[in-house]
Amino acid sequence: MVQTKKDIAVVGSGLVGSLLAIYLRRIGHKVTVFDRRPDIRLVSFSGRSINLAMSNRGWKTLREVGIEEQIKEIAIPLYRRALHVKDKPMYYQEYGKDGEAIWSISRGVLNRKMIDLAEAEGVVFRFNEKVWDVDLPGARLFTGESEKSEWTAYNFDLIFGCDGAFSRIRHKMQRRSRFDYSQDFIDVGYKELTIPPTEKGTHKLDKNSFHIWPRGNFMFIAMPNLDGSFTCTLFLPFEGEVSFENIQTKNQAQQFFETHFPSVIDEIENLTEDFFKNPTSALVTMKCYPWTYWNKVALVGDAAHAVVPFFGQGMNAGFEDIYVLNELMHKHGDDWEAIFKNYQESRKPNADAIAELSYRNFIEMSSKTADPRFLLQKQIEKWFAGKHPELWIPAYSRVTFSDQPYAEALAIGDMQESIMKAVMQLPDIENRWDSEEVESFILQQLSEVKEHTIIS
Amino acid sequence: MVQTKKDIAVVGSGLVGSLLAIYLRRIGHKVTVFDRRPDIRLVSFSGRSINLAMSNRGWKTLREVGIEEQIKEIAIPLYRRALHVKDKPMYYQEYGKDGEAIWSISRGVLNRKMIDLAEAEGVVFRFNEKVWDVDLPGARLFTGESEKSEWTAYNFDLIFGCDGAFSRIRHKMQRRSRFDYSQDFIDVGYKELTIPPTEKGTHKLDKNSFHIWPRGNFMFIAMPNLDGSFTCTLFLPFEGEVSFENIQTKNQAQQFFETHFPSVIDEIENLTEDFFKNPTSALVTMKCYPWTYWNKVALVGDAAHAVVPFFGQGMNAGFEDIYVLNELMHKHGDDWEAIFKNYQESRKPNADAIAELSYRNFIEMSSKTADPRFLLQKQIEKWFAGKHPELWIPAYSRVTFSDQPYAEALAIGDMQESIMKAVMQLPDIENRWDSEEVESFILQQLSEVKEHTIIS
Repeated sequence: MVQTKKDIAVVGSGLVGSLLAIYLRRIGHKVTVFDRRPDIRLVSFSGRSINLAMSNRGWKTLREVGIEEQIKEIAIPLYRRALHVKDKPMYYQEYGKDGEAIWSISRGVLNRKMIDLAEAEGVVFRFNEKVWDVDLPGARLFTGESEKSEWTAYNFDLIFGCDGAFSRIRHKMQRRSRFDYSQDFIDVGYKELTIPPTEKGTHKLDKNSFHIWPRGNFMFIAMPNLDGSFTCTLFLPFEGEVSFENIQTKNQAQQFFETHFPSVIDEIENLTEDFFKNPTSALVTMKCYPWTYWNKVALVGDAAHAVVPFFGQGMNAGFEDIYVLNELMHKHGDDWEAIFKNYQESRKPNADAIAELSYRNFIEMSSKTADPRFLLQKQIEKWFAGKHPELWIPAYSRVTFSDQPYAEALAIGDMQESIMKAVMQLPDIENRWDSEEVESFILQQLSEVKEHTIIS
Repeated sequence: MVQTKKDIAVVGSGLVGSLLAIYLRRIGHKVTVFDRRPDIRLVSFSGRSINLAMSNRGWKTLREVGIEEQIKEIAIPLYRRALHVKDKPMYYQEYGKDGEAIWSISRGVLNRKMIDLAEAEGVVFRFNEKVWDVDLPGARLFTGESEKSEWTAYNFDLIFGCDGAFSRIRHKMQRRSRFDYSQDFIDVGYKELTIPPTEKGTHKLDKNSFHIWPRGNFMFIAMPNLDGSFTCTLFLPFEGEVSFENIQTKNQAQQFFETHFPSVIDEIENLTEDFFKNPTSALVTMKCYPWTYWNKVALVGDAAHAVVPFFGQGMNAGFEDIYVLNELMHKHGDDWEAIFKNYQESRKPNADAIAELSYRNFIEMSSKTADPRFLLQKQIEKWFAGKHPELWIPAYSRVTFSDQPYAEALAIGDMQESIMKAVMQLPDIENRWDSEEVESFILQQLSEVKEHTIIS
């Protein structure tokens, strides 16, 4: 269905805001993007960004408006994890047998490119313009220098809030009755560090790997950039024995890396300076509902659902919101009430599911990786999946390399987990985990689940 | 320990704010209470309040400052539930064998009395003064006509936020990083109605009962006032077949009551007028953490933890916060950092527990009361508790008639529930639920739990 041209505001010029703007322009709408910050193309950026991992859902959404290839030019495929376990030689884990990859992109580089592409489509950007209030039924925005200064009012037909986890648009919706909302911080913070290129401008570590130095309840990761550098992130508890709280001096920072990350310490640039210059940032899971106000306002991306970064799906989930919105705009035409209603009802369960999956990955990484029973369970899963790849697709692959709804991926993951719990109860499992008996047991369990699913 | 006199602001002149002010005056502090609303003693009130049920924790806190008896004069003891089940004669359920009671008080009457008492203690009230912002580290309040008008700044040594579930003080804390917050609305709303006194000024229904007309996923309740009237509350889903949404005309309201509440319809005053004059209000569970900011600011009562009203514990929990704060003020003297730290750490698990218990009561009332298995389970519990009152104290009694920490009451309730689940699995339980066998089974389960508790 064709849509009548509307005058639309997008609040937030981040990745989701600029991509949504491109989609809206393709349909023919007039699009103005507001951002309280300056144009990211005119400022240097650094200090608090984990590199992005673009995977299937992200690419699908870029492909739909024909910009996948342009973005691939600024991305680096990672075909494997490179695991730097302490006192062990580094080893690789391929993501998939078929050369499946996630793609490392610098948030800043990608955001600049997306704004360029949006401008080329005719999107108007109003940078340095702070939105302080929104009239939801009237689709009016109020901007000004400060919360207490004179404000300018803008009238639109529709407003999209793409202004991130601490969204101002949502803030207004939140004051209405019956608006469900939660923000939950985890006890782990993160800090950005950098591994610079070699003198020749090449990468110091394998550039097609996602490098991980797991250390129980903390870890260090590195993802490659085009210029030969790696953006690194230290994830560490805020408080406790080994924690940010207990690293207060350059000496302590040096000591911490020497003790826990001796293999990489020499590669990190200005380690002790950057450690104190760069902020320690917090990580939040944010959920809310509803996401829309009648046929006037909708939240998209992190403004509607923010997740912890341990599944690498935050941006991908936000892009998939746009993909779904676009399908609904084509299906329902000018019935924006139907578009928004279907959008929030179909996306909400999937947003909750990726929040849960992301949080579980955090728990898994921070507390379970040292548990030999857990490691055995993972080993059995891998062994079985290798024998029956069509019967046992791990949750990671469903989430990362397919566009199966997150909620389904979570449900199947739960089912697999309950089977594995039963497997782990089998007598003497430690010694016969790779036996034919165990294989038949899993096959039997799977067929029972299937029957049950069909019946119920 | 004796405390140095401080200049303290309390934001909110509701029940918790005015009672806390009395406690602080008793220690000798200077206390100013701010409220954005007018003095409740000068305005008429009605329309959106469920009558309060004061129980043990509330009385304990009033007793500590010697005002229990004065408040009892404006309260009516309810010794029992009066159940008006459809197509059945009304019947009573005593709250306890020893004349245990909850006490019905009108929120407005109680609030007026508390403000009188606080003023008599030397508390200064600043009504009609709207707090818009708070400087947390500086313990400064900013008030003014509107959010955008000129503001007046006040400096204090400490600030207590007692400004309810939508607290402005918490709102400011919420913007800080690592502040956990959630608000969850239930799908049921409520509306206040009134049963007036008889012409002689007496109560039309038994005045020492909590009257309930349960109807599955909705219900009507009535609690007595001193003037012979009853404050009634209709709890009803917002949407669905039988819902507020489907009562749009006076005729429909009349029809609804004739169909579902024929035994009480004639007693209700101005039913169809009040139904549309009084607001339909929403019910929220609000959780947050932390509750305090260093040694400067603390949230108390609904500002820190708001619950749905189905356990009658909202005010009681808020008063118990004050009781605990007072103990800690006497224990830690001028170490306000220790007072606030211990306050939030000891109260938070209990606040979460009463939120859970209150929500469960809602689920129980709205969806389980029609389930014969559930009713059988309740019957078995009652039968066993009658035989072994020292071994099986129901959660309701622990919460309402003791001051056992809510978290313990919840944990014991969970343990009882798991035993009852096992009981319900016994073969042919329907026909032998009151047998010696079942009694021994429960006793056996209880003794195993006890052993286990000691061991672990």
